[in-house]
Amino acid sequence: MKIKRIGVLTAGGDCPGLNAVVRAVAKHALQNGVEVLGFKNGFDGMVKNQFIVLDDKAVSGILTRGGTILGTSNLANPFSYTLPPIGTAKKPKDVSSLVAHTFKTNRLDALITIGGDGTLSMSQKFLEMGLPIVGVPKTIDNDLLSTDYTFGFDSALSVATDAVDRIHTTAESHHRVMILETMGRYAGWIALRSCIAGGGDICLLPEIPYNEDAIIEAIEVRQLKGKTFSIIVAAEGAKNEKGEMAVQKTIAGSTDPIRLGGISSKIASLIEDRLQLECRVVVLGHLQRGGTPTAFDRWLSTRFGTEAVDLVLKGQTGNMVALRGTEIISVPIKEAVANLKRVDPQGEEVRTALAVGTSFGSKTIK
Amino acid sequence: MKIKRIGVLTAGGDCPGLNAVVRAVAKHALQNGVEVLGFKNGFDGMVKNQFIVLDDKAVSGILTRGGTILGTSNLANPFSYTLPPIGTAKKPKDVSSLVAHTFKTNRLDALITIGGDGTLSMSQKFLEMGLPIVGVPKTIDNDLLSTDYTFGFDSALSVATDAVDRIHTTAESHHRVMILETMGRYAGWIALRSCIAGGGDICLLPEIPYNEDAIIEAIEVRQLKGKTFSIIVAAEGAKNEKGEMAVQKTIAGSTDPIRLGGISSKIASLIEDRLQLECRVVVLGHLQRGGTPTAFDRWLSTRFGTEAVDLVLKGQTGNMVALRGTEIISVPIKEAVANLKRVDPQGEEVRTALAVGTSFGSKTIK
Amino acid sequence: MKIKRIGVLTAGGDCPGLNAVVRAVAKHALQNGVEVLGFKNGFDGMVKNQFIVLDDKAVSGILTRGGTILGTSNLANPFSYTLPPIGTAKKPKDVSSLVAHTFKTNRLDALITIGGDGTLSMSQKFLEMGLPIVGVPKTIDNDLLSTDYTFGFDSALSVATDAVDRIHTTAESHHRVMILETMGRYAGWIALRSCIAGGGDICLLPEIPYNEDAIIEAIEVRQLKGKTFSIIVAAEGAKNEKGEMAVQKTIAGSTDPIRLGGISSKIASLIEDRLQLECRVVVLGHLQRGGTPTAFDRWLSTRFGTEAVDLVLKGQTGNMVALRGTEIISVPIKEAVANLKRVDPQGEEVRTALAVGTSFGSKTIK
Amino acid sequence: MKIKRIGVLTAGGDCPGLNAVVRAVAKHALQNGVEVLGFKNGFDGMVKNQFIVLDDKAVSGILTRGGTILGTSNLANPFSYTLPPIGTAKKPKDVSSLVAHTFKTNRLDALITIGGDGTLSMSQKFLEMGLPIVGVPKTIDNDLLSTDYTFGFDSALSVATDAVDRIHTTAESHHRVMILETMGRYAGWIALRSCIAGGGDICLLPEIPYNEDAIIEAIEVRQLKGKTFSIIVAAEGAKNEKGEMAVQKTIAGSTDPIRLGGISSKIASLIEDRLQLECRVVVLGHLQRGGTPTAFDRWLSTRFGTEAVDLVLKGQTGNMVALRGTEIISVPIKEAVANLKRVDPQGEEVRTALAVGTSFGSKTIK
Repeated sequence: MKIKRIGVLTAGGDCPGLNAVVRAVAKHALQNGVEVLGFKNGFDGMVKNQFIVLDDKAVSGILTRGGTILGTSNLANPFSYTLPPIGTAKKPKDVSSLVAHTFKTNRLDALITIGGDGTLSMSQKFLEMGLPIVGVPKTIDNDLLSTDYTFGFDSALSVATDAVDRIHTTAESHHRVMILETMGRYAGWIALRSCIAGGGDICLLPEIPYNEDAIIEAIEVRQLKGKTFSIIVAAEGAKNEKGEMAVQKTIAGSTDPIRLGGISSKIASLIEDRLQLECRVVVLGHLQRGGTPTAFDRWLSTRFGTEAVDLVLKGQTGNMVALRGTEIISVPIKEAVANLKRVDPQGEEVRTALAVGTSFGSKTIK
Repeated sequence: MKIKRIGVLTAGGDCPGLNAVVRAVAKHALQNGVEVLGFKNGFDGMVKNQFIVLDDKAVSGILTRGGTILGTSNLANPFSYTLPPIGTAKKPKDVSSLVAHTFKTNRLDALITIGGDGTLSMSQKFLEMGLPIVGVPKTIDNDLLSTDYTFGFDSALSVATDAVDRIHTTAESHHRVMILETMGRYAGWIALRSCIAGGGDICLLPEIPYNEDAIIEAIEVRQLKGKTFSIIVAAEGAKNEKGEMAVQKTIAGSTDPIRLGGISSKIASLIEDRLQLECRVVVLGHLQRGGTPTAFDRWLSTRFGTEAVDLVLKGQTGNMVALRGTEIISVPIKEAVANLKRVDPQGEEVRTALAVGTSFGSKTIK
Repeated sequence: MKIKRIGVLTAGGDCPGLNAVVRAVAKHALQNGVEVLGFKNGFDGMVKNQFIVLDDKAVSGILTRGGTILGTSNLANPFSYTLPPIGTAKKPKDVSSLVAHTFKTNRLDALITIGGDGTLSMSQKFLEMGLPIVGVPKTIDNDLLSTDYTFGFDSALSVATDAVDRIHTTAESHHRVMILETMGRYAGWIALRSCIAGGGDICLLPEIPYNEDAIIEAIEVRQLKGKTFSIIVAAEGAKNEKGEMAVQKTIAGSTDPIRLGGISSKIASLIEDRLQLECRVVVLGHLQRGGTPTAFDRWLSTRFGTEAVDLVLKGQTGNMVALRGTEIISVPIKEAVANLKRVDPQGEEVRTALAVGTSFGSKTIK
Repeated sequence: MKIKRIGVLTAGGDCPGLNAVVRAVAKHALQNGVEVLGFKNGFDGMVKNQFIVLDDKAVSGILTRGGTILGTSNLANPFSYTLPPIGTAKKPKDVSSLVAHTFKTNRLDALITIGGDGTLSMSQKFLEMGLPIVGVPKTIDNDLLSTDYTFGFDSALSVATDAVDRIHTTAESHHRVMILETMGRYAGWIALRSCIAGGGDICLLPEIPYNEDAIIEAIEVRQLKGKTFSIIVAAEGAKNEKGEMAVQKTIAGSTDPIRLGGISSKIASLIEDRLQLECRVVVLGHLQRGGTPTAFDRWLSTRFGTEAVDLVLKGQTGNMVALRGTEIISVPIKEAVANLKRVDPQGEEVRTALAVGTSFGSKTIK
């Protein structure tokens, strides 16, 4: 089949590199005589048939820009669709047929969906409904097993590591405990890697339940060695041994639990109570998602984008692009969404951190 | 009098550029045959007679480093001195005579104190007790009237502006309201300037009481113009028209009210309630204090440090160095601490922000 | 007179902050009901009547971008105008009447010219021909006496200082002499300030003729102190005691003498010949002009832009905006172009550098 | 055999991440009760038995610093050893037995050598002489086949990509051709990846001989599309179809051919002659080697360092650590040095660049 026109959309939380993927998709498709429609705000644009035509001019100059020129949406699930505004009690409806209708109306030959876990799962459902889709994985947490890295992760890591560097000087000057809270609700990659890259002293992860006594002891051991300060890097999803996350009180109607503090506040209170040390907390939050992508992320995004078009051109829909070493490969979307990549408490990354003196606040992993 | 030996200390919150001042003081003094003792942890080192000798090697390589190699302390006030640990109910004592004793014991000819409002006030008291002191102003908030700029401010501004840039892409992609909370309890310079530099839409300052309706209206006006997102930059000390700061619940024994949210959380709730828009909050906190100083701050710190030594050499103690245009001048410490520099709601900086479309969430300043 | 429509243009070498000025001009003018035409490529667009209308959308998102959306031209001088291509031997013509004609045709009430020395001089001529003009000074070298700073300088300084930091680690690791060549043909501000900010060991400026023996001696003194490396920061226009600049061989038809090395290569050869030390050279060149402006430059650009419109609205054409301390003032363009601001060899900036151990490679300034 | 004491050295050109490796080696060894001697200036310190003891304090705070605290040397080859100063006509001698002697004298159980091609080849010779050595690969050019990445490459790439971004705005504003010359004498990875990451228009590599007509045509095609500027990224080792590198005139006694311009100057002259377009050249040179390593490089360095110690502890000397995907593996040093990793003109990376519109100035690869 000759491919003449494809659609592309970006869904889920924004991420440095989205525009670079969109640009690569458009440039490569146009070179091959394929028109590209960019649907707005994730699947919402498919539901409402809202798009912009991605010609050369539309994607010029976007390689370096954070965010996505297409807009995105965390909420727009065509299989359970609620109209805004948020917080209202409307009952969600299945409007997936509208997506199929938009696909047909615009005579698309394929759709490229750029998104995370949720987006890929929806893509799989649409695949099963007969829509030819190629997926591009996007998770800032880097928690997808099928790919060595997802774009955006390196940029987030770079922001987190820079933050560790910044709080280091304050911790040292004031003889304080400084706690940095990073993203990572289920997978601790940003926290672990920024802790290794920044030389953090204690690292708290969703994958390694922490023990309060072990945290206190780690700081005391440092004090015995004459170190008057400590740096803690904590993933937002770090849990204690009972499996409890820090209470994150949510404002009604909000989806942003960070606002009222979480793991970092909890650990700060623990340390102040037990050790009478001054603690300071920094919650990185959305700083990790924004800004211009790193060189690595721009490269990876560009490779993902061109490969996604290649898969379409070769008729290999149903697949997702992925990175293996320095090669771009493809894996069935179905498989890709089945497995999360989480930090292995017994793995080499954790061993490396232990080897340079980082504690995980655990009685067993040490 | 031939100057043979001087002391130097850094006090109050840490700030990019402290090490650059210390280095310039030491280098210039040593060139003039003057020994330099660096007292540890602000006035605490004077109380306890703890210091390091600042020879050429000790200050080598510190120009670019954040924090202070001397350590600092927010709490050590010799006129009302409490021993750690924090949170204990000891009665503070006046140990100022110990400072004078340390001065005498080490046969110091002068002391250079690098610090903010509090440090300069203490320095004035010691001056009145007969200690020859030269002050170097340090306030990351840039709220000292006697000097155009204090070092550290430009670095903090640079971090805050970078944060505005980062959240911009997310706000745009997700059609959200993003709120950035900066430092500035009494003076809104960081918020105002980063808002101008980053192109923020609404700016909330301690100096311009905000009105909730005016904030909502500013967002609605943007919506009418087709802008689906807004960026709010709020100083932590922004107040409403009743003069109320956002409630900042403090953990017992802590001096870090940021931890449980403040102005940014309050404004987020307001907007979600009134406009059903998604809001996200970033509290910059200590990221503004850390890291390598900007070129401007390194230059200013170096000029302050050498000029402070010059004042000592010329016998002009009792003064503080200050920046006027591109010149370094000196002003009596007494005068310097008497006046705060706050944002003038009728001034040109505010007019500039209004001129490029920024709202101050006010019914009167617009 | 009611102002209804103005023109704006950017001329001379590009500079971080140009877009921020253009944006501020447009936003403030539009708020006051004034239309804005942006002429393309400096005065060339006035000659050819080529412009874009600067509405709100045209200036949206440009605050943070380097370069100028209007384009610029180093060569387009309407009083001596040569058509491209470069290198051809056409005789230049006076086409200044075309500029006046464009002004009239478009019923402009005023013109805002953003440019350096050359642009301001041309603006003065047009003023004398009766065109109401307000100038905004742009010189990355910061060599205009009437203003404390020009925008772009802080960004260039930031790039240069970062470069000093980078070569520092190599110099130290390899025990080498590293030479950084910065911009500054007539004024050495970038070299001097980046040398102070980066902790350079030797600084060569157009304003302080260097002596080869003094350079060699400065390195030998460092060797005696056990320092195995040296950092030299040299302005491209640094001269020896005979007033000779380094030979900069120019490719025919080119205006870019940097290409074939200059002062940095010359000094490298000197040191290798005399001291048998390994030298390495970095010529920063155009890296100093590009990229997103610093927070300070964005602020200054925004203030300049709004003030320029205010001058137009108040009928105070013939003036240039300028920075004095933290205030924006205005000065007659005529005065502004008459005086260059160069580094004073006896001044405080040089004394500061000497005080922290920097040598100027001079027998007299030390 | 119980390992009690090891040596470590850094050799060859400096590279961001060297200190991070040294720190990881020291920390992990010390945790296992192994003493660590850090030999100074590469193999030179082994020849002269000059070292520092790497205790916890010695490696504290070095993770983020560029360069190497041990010093390095490009020239010190014990098998063909010349005493400084450079440029003198001494006959080199084989002093390899001194290295073995130093090894024995200090009762070392193993040596970890951190270096590139040359260092690894020497290490192999010492292995064959019976010295137990583990190698850590260091090449900023990333041209070693056995490992996906070497540390330092990501940092260099980040500097190069930032430079592409900076010159982009100038090129666009001035309608110029801007040429960036990156490192890469035999392998073009930095040029290729920074061209992809920065959106360069033409990329010249050692692996793809360029054709002058093809370069001119690529610019002309852009002009036809209305693009008034072009960005060229050229590796220093780019060759024409006759296999000629640009003439790089070398100053006597110097090893720094960059100084007098090379490929970038040559291409600039070509374009100015043929197209009468203004060109500007930036030679990045040593900026690519310096400064704090990126998060990725710090992580990779730390993993390499701990793994190198693990290999020593397990008695697996003779091997080099390497990265495969996200895993650290080991390969025989012998194999590792046998194969260079160069850009494959027919490979996917090149295809990706072509797909987004980059030309390689070639008649065949397009």
